[in-house]
Amino acid sequence: MKSMDELFHAMLQDVLYAEKQLIKTLAKLAKNASNPDLQKAFTEHRAETQEHVERLDKVFEMVGKRPRAKKCEAILGIVAEGDEVIEEAEDDQILDAGLIASAQAAEHYEIARYGTLVAWAKQIGQPDIASLLSQTLEEEKKTDALLSKLASRKVNPAASGGKARAA
Amino acid sequence: MKSMDELFHAMLQDVLYAEKQLIKTLAKLAKNASNPDLQKAFTEHRAETQEHVERLDKVFEMVGKRPRAKKCEAILGIVAEGDEVIEEAEDDQILDAGLIASAQAAEHYEIARYGTLVAWAKQIGQPDIASLLSQTLEEEKKTDALLSKLASRKVNPAASGGKARAA
Repeated sequence: MKSMDELFHAMLQDVLYAEKQLIKTLAKLAKNASNPDLQKAFTEHRAETQEHVERLDKVFEMVGKRPRAKKCEAILGIVAEGDEVIEEAEDDQILDAGLIASAQAAEHYEIARYGTLVAWAKQIGQPDIASLLSQTLEEEKKTDALLSKLASRKVNPAASGGKARAA
Repeated sequence: MKSMDELFHAMLQDVLYAEKQLIKTLAKLAKNASNPDLQKAFTEHRAETQEHVERLDKVFEMVGKRPRAKKCEAILGIVAEGDEVIEEAEDDQILDAGLIASAQAAEHYEIARYGTLVAWAKQIGQPDIASLLSQTLEEEKKTDALLSKLASRKVNPAASGGKARAA
């Protein structure tokens, strides 16, 4: 790898893999969630994630490359930890709290990667690509914030038996 | 896993593993970085990471548990992707840009995990633990912001041959 363009292209392939993986993972999270607001959040973000894949396909086109995903060990590790929570939680409310944690780890992976892609797109003189990927970045941040809100207002208090405690 | 306390304890073990892994990884990043500011950032954050481990040890003590790390697949995946960049980059400046991306993926993993730990600590009625882990969370966010600044002001322009372009 000798240029920023190649670096950008490699990261694009990594993120395409991650997004495709997350379409499957978000379906699993929605299926396992008990809180209806949480189910809704996962389902809606799954639909958004499908749009993220379409946006990535467009970016591949804009740089004159075929959309190709490259195995992303990081997202597989994050998803594996989420699967562990699903296996080990013995209570629906505890599971909900764990599912939020897993989803936020995935969101933060994407926030890091899209942050990098936007910076690199600007650097290689592709402001249109930077702007397109910024939209996705903002949606990932919004999902992360929504999950934090659901956790602190509903899911965590329910998981600790309704005893919400102020810090 | 039946309670928030157990969930919190399991996450604590995951994060202890991740932090210990990152002490090694940050040494490798510093060794491979060419830009002196970047070397310094990695070296300083490595020292901070050692403090984060001490803080986690203290939190284990506060919940009456022995500090024990549990294999964290997510951080191993993130580190594996960083190793790939080190192997594949054929130019010092390109490598620097790739190292920043890897470090930011690790930072965001920690931001997600400490965010969760702080929320859970509040929920289980441990405000002192929440406050202690919030300090680490803020340091991770600060490091992420510093790396973004180094990337956009120095490392990325150097990697694209000095042709910094405004978006």
